[in-house]
Amino acid sequence: MKTIFNADHKLHDAAFELIGGKMMPAFECPRRAEIVLEKVTEAKLGPVIAPAAKGIAAAAKVHDPRFVGFLERAWELWSEEHGDSDALPMTWPARSLRQIEPESIDGKLGFYSFDAGCGLTRTSFQAIAAGVETALTGVDLILGGDFSAFALSRPPGHHATADQMGGYCYLNNAAIATQVLAEAGRRVAILDVDYHHGNGTQAIFYQRGDIYVTSIHGHPTQEYPYFLGYADETGAGAGEGANLNLPLYWGSAWDLYGEALDKACAGIEAFGADTLVVSLGLDTFEEDPISRFKLKSENYLRMGERIRKLGLPTLFVFEGGYAVEALGINTANVLIGFES
Amino acid sequence: MKTIFNADHKLHDAAFELIGGKMMPAFECPRRAEIVLEKVTEAKLGPVIAPAAKGIAAAAKVHDPRFVGFLERAWELWSEEHGDSDALPMTWPARSLRQIEPESIDGKLGFYSFDAGCGLTRTSFQAIAAGVETALTGVDLILGGDFSAFALSRPPGHHATADQMGGYCYLNNAAIATQVLAEAGRRVAILDVDYHHGNGTQAIFYQRGDIYVTSIHGHPTQEYPYFLGYADETGAGAGEGANLNLPLYWGSAWDLYGEALDKACAGIEAFGADTLVVSLGLDTFEEDPISRFKLKSENYLRMGERIRKLGLPTLFVFEGGYAVEALGINTANVLIGFES
Repeated sequence: MKTIFNADHKLHDAAFELIGGKMMPAFECPRRAEIVLEKVTEAKLGPVIAPAAKGIAAAAKVHDPRFVGFLERAWELWSEEHGDSDALPMTWPARSLRQIEPESIDGKLGFYSFDAGCGLTRTSFQAIAAGVETALTGVDLILGGDFSAFALSRPPGHHATADQMGGYCYLNNAAIATQVLAEAGRRVAILDVDYHHGNGTQAIFYQRGDIYVTSIHGHPTQEYPYFLGYADETGAGAGEGANLNLPLYWGSAWDLYGEALDKACAGIEAFGADTLVVSLGLDTFEEDPISRFKLKSENYLRMGERIRKLGLPTLFVFEGGYAVEALGINTANVLIGFES
Repeated sequence: MKTIFNADHKLHDAAFELIGGKMMPAFECPRRAEIVLEKVTEAKLGPVIAPAAKGIAAAAKVHDPRFVGFLERAWELWSEEHGDSDALPMTWPARSLRQIEPESIDGKLGFYSFDAGCGLTRTSFQAIAAGVETALTGVDLILGGDFSAFALSRPPGHHATADQMGGYCYLNNAAIATQVLAEAGRRVAILDVDYHHGNGTQAIFYQRGDIYVTSIHGHPTQEYPYFLGYADETGAGAGEGANLNLPLYWGSAWDLYGEALDKACAGIEAFGADTLVVSLGLDTFEEDPISRFKLKSENYLRMGERIRKLGLPTLFVFEGGYAVEALGINTANVLIGFES
């Protein structure tokens, strides 16, 4: 299995996020991708390649082009107003408010986001774009006949909606990859194993019957992103039945997780997918600092094995996971399990 | 004119707010109410009295009782999770997300708010409740025959919606007072002269034809709260025609402001109001640190005189204004102008 690694990921290094009422060093940090690269390399899973210079035009297949344009120029607008600091939103168009894009940058940041955990630095957009190219290079490998590939993209993407950043995510790497695969004729299922519900991915494909989305995650009544990810969200319109949420409560360990994974895999099989995209978050780990599942490192081998049993060409796209020292091993374990 | 001053206001003293990408000492601070009290006292406008112990049952007339209950216990829930620090939301149910109240406190905070400028301390709710009692005591004075009263309530209220805090506001003192006056048979108009659009007040009464709401404020495309306050918001259903927004752009001075105030007063007269509630924010001042109008201290005398010309029994309810040293004089000037 080839790993695609975007060295430009480190250009996104937000100083802070708002969490627990405080500005904390951002949990989503460059070291995450580096340790995964180290451990994947040590595991000798296959060549590590750079993303191709594919550009990000494909992002507009699932995102509002105005949102993509906003991300590209947001920091410049911010710096004109606030100087050389990280851009961060501070107010949002929640219910009772109108969905109109304001002219001022603080208003735009709120309009195009849903939380205060998505800082933008001077060079963030370069990293975000390289992350998309990483996923698209993975698509090329799959379409070229590789049975699997690992897009080690950073920042992550699964929380990003058609026109909102949030949860450390800006452009939805997995959704963009999925759409390109679908346009190439593949019948794609997305399996999201990140601890947090992939609200962006779900929202993007919610009315699509040709793409299956299933997610195992912390129950939204307890856990971020709080406002999506319930079991009763089964798709709408042509997408009815093509969305399967499997929320689990705090403290869930491999016994419950494995059962949910079986259900997710059964759904993927029933859908008749011929290609799989895995949103690979590792924050289900027992030592993750912002999550409350109890998976152990060895469980990730089982996760990879179970996914492999589907027998589908599989593109892994890196998402969350914040127990940095164990993150590399846990990620590699999924891929080792898949290859075994 | 009597001033009602709630000494408990100082129990709300949030350490920080998120603004300009940084955690800053909250602009909405206890000193604001103290300097207004000083200057109103110096101006010998009339007796300063304490609020009556009226309780806050009346808050449920305009707020969702679940929201009021949440505010009352929010800090306790927060401290169980995050310890002895100020509660602050960090994620919001923006578009694409569902409006479901989560069980966890971080989720609840997002559900019941729309920005990161509404910290809750251990004792905030006592101050919030006293602020409501202050406004209700003002209502009693008006209903008892006083021609005018000044409810020096803090924290402010006009951004608070039926079930959301935001913009330093928790319970909507002016809206609660208005509703009680309306239930007593008064035909009430609200004039909101705070620099920021009173989105909460508007939303609460938007479908009501028996209460008139007019506001002069920074244009929402430039200024907080960004997502409400446009001129095309004229009310809905039975409330059609009973909402008048007069947004002005950055840099507006008394010439433009005075014209807008004339229009607002004309609307109040056309509505046939017999009682006036003024949401008295002083952040239109040229030196306000977070606002961009250019009103001078003497202009506040003119503002008071113009309001007085309406000839209506008037309850002033204190809202924003962050140029602390001038805030007392500017507030007193409105009341002096009104009394002259």
